[in-house]
Amino acid sequence: MRLCVIPGDGIGCEVVPVAVGALMRLLPELQVIEAQAGWDCFQRSGEVVPAATLAAMRECGAGLFGAVSSPTRPVEGYRSAILTLRQQLGLAVNLRPVRSWPLVSPRAGIDMLILRENSEGLYVGRESMSGPDKAIAERHISRQASERIAGFAAQVARQRSARRITLVHKANVLPLTCGLFRDSCRQILAEQGLDHLVDERLVDVAALQLVERPDAFDILLTTNLFGDILSDLACYWSGGLGMAPSLNLGEGIALAEPVHGSAPDIAGTGQANPLAALLSAALLLRHHWALPEQAERLESAVAATLESLGSLELGRSTTLTLEREVLRRL
Amino acid sequence: MRLCVIPGDGIGCEVVPVAVGALMRLLPELQVIEAQAGWDCFQRSGEVVPAATLAAMRECGAGLFGAVSSPTRPVEGYRSAILTLRQQLGLAVNLRPVRSWPLVSPRAGIDMLILRENSEGLYVGRESMSGPDKAIAERHISRQASERIAGFAAQVARQRSARRITLVHKANVLPLTCGLFRDSCRQILAEQGLDHLVDERLVDVAALQLVERPDAFDILLTTNLFGDILSDLACYWSGGLGMAPSLNLGEGIALAEPVHGSAPDIAGTGQANPLAALLSAALLLRHHWALPEQAERLESAVAATLESLGSLELGRSTTLTLEREVLRRL
Ligand SMILES: CC(C)[C@H](C(=O)O)[C@@H](O)C(=O)O
Ligand SMILES: CC(C)[C@H](C(=O)O)[C@@H](O)C(=O)O
Repeated sequence: MRLCVIPGDGIGCEVVPVAVGALMRLLPELQVIEAQAGWDCFQRSGEVVPAATLAAMRECGAGLFGAVSSPTRPVEGYRSAILTLRQQLGLAVNLRPVRSWPLVSPRAGIDMLILRENSEGLYVGRESMSGPDKAIAERHISRQASERIAGFAAQVARQRSARRITLVHKANVLPLTCGLFRDSCRQILAEQGLDHLVDERLVDVAALQLVERPDAFDILLTTNLFGDILSDLACYWSGGLGMAPSLNLGEGIALAEPVHGSAPDIAGTGQANPLAALLSAALLLRHHWALPEQAERLESAVAATLESLGSLELGRSTTLTLEREVLRRL
Repeated sequence: MRLCVIPGDGIGCEVVPVAVGALMRLLPELQVIEAQAGWDCFQRSGEVVPAATLAAMRECGAGLFGAVSSPTRPVEGYRSAILTLRQQLGLAVNLRPVRSWPLVSPRAGIDMLILRENSEGLYVGRESMSGPDKAIAERHISRQASERIAGFAAQVARQRSARRITLVHKANVLPLTCGLFRDSCRQILAEQGLDHLVDERLVDVAALQLVERPDAFDILLTTNLFGDILSDLACYWSGGLGMAPSLNLGEGIALAEPVHGSAPDIAGTGQANPLAALLSAALLLRHHWALPEQAERLESAVAATLESLGSLELGRSTTLTLEREVLRRL
């Protein structure tokens, strides 16, 4: 078993080693390879994601990405490292679980899984100027990509005995693109005998319901940018971005990634919260390596750590303290 | 002064008369003309928005739209009435205030204004199939429309002594379209001497912050679909869709519209909540007729009504009770 770690910039370099430590505790035979990507890497090498990083990822099949910084203004040749990795490695499914955690969640009992199509929509990079005063971006939706994410949803729905799969779209305004997404998903889910679980929401309504009645959702299945927006919003219930893990999945390849950014303001202070990185590692265990028990052990160690801390203590906890507390409980 | 009322379908026909009653109390000289639009109208006449309705709107300059039903599957010739009205009447600005109300709001002290560009983005209706298995939608952003909404934002910012104008976009993924929106807005706001108020957020981050820290926002300025999603989400703080008013604004023309739908499940039961329609009428008073005192009177009557009710009573209140209570306080 091999893992390619891509710490990236800022606190990425601080939280990734913690997650690697936990994985090595659970998988003593794990081989770890380090690779470069991001803004620092770009400034050093002129490449956001060097070919060697892609090769290392392909070789390992599993990766853990930290976070990267971005320039505030467009820079020639620079493109987001995570977008490049998703695209180059065919990571077409993005899995973002949202659940209640002790201490940090505003409410107990929330447990949903947001599945975000990760390869197309407005992320295809088809944007152009039409004259100096007008810009046009394309949103691509294909049956193939929609079926792929729906197929994955069906698989996960069985694993977690889901009680509902909510398709989120805006087909009242975008009948062709959103309609194709919806109909392709419905067809696959019906073929898999899951049509009784399928439900639909318009994206605006879904955004409100994610706040008003988060327990109405179980699996939420949507397109790329809607998934980006709704998963950030929904992670309120997990306790915010500091508790939001994700997994980018392709064919036999997976890249785990805490949703938070590189947080240059706290980088180097030792205050970075490694829990989202740890929970991202748990997703690799469950969904890529098919080791649900180890995933559960890691998640339970995170939960137990939070339970043992008061809010004040959590606020004062350093990366090191949290690492020690989680490892103790593994 | 003239008002074109377009009750539409379902509870639209029940809440619009309440708002009209309140406006007539405040503006005794108001002339009211009724016009048709929506699904019922389409089934009767084959037209979603008949030419006579557009003419009546143009003649009056001010309108109040209730709600319309939509078919669940695409129907030849059918297009959302409200989209048609926005487009045909050049209603390029959508104003959606979000504030705390007694009784129904989860928290006191929230007061923000979402300004949604209302004419372009993914709403331009440029969608096509590229083969049987792929659909493409276009997102258009123009300097002109971006400058127009920014100009309006500047005007409102002065009226309400705004402490911040937050531009919401996704320029890290859509540098050209979102970049053009952002840069055009920034330029207008700078020309208006308001650059010290301007702030930016990525749309995913904004979605989370609208839940985590709603008081961080004052004026939120964004593109069409982002505004659609974020305003629904944000109206959680007002007490949900039942308390969410909006105003569509063009050049010398305005159409008020409660954000809720036609609610076929409760239509005809007398349970429809008319408060969002009343608050939409208040927006006409403030922003179209430039009668801020009358707007305030109406909003205060709504607030006082809510204050006088317990939650249980509110749940049991009929349209008639709420109408009577608000009118009594006007
Ligand atoms: C950094 C950005 C390009 C990325 C996205 O939009 O997908 C991020 O927001 C995420 O959710 O992983
Ligand atoms: C009904 C629908 C077309 C409309 C929109 O998307 O703009 C609605 O959601 C709104 O916010 O007014």
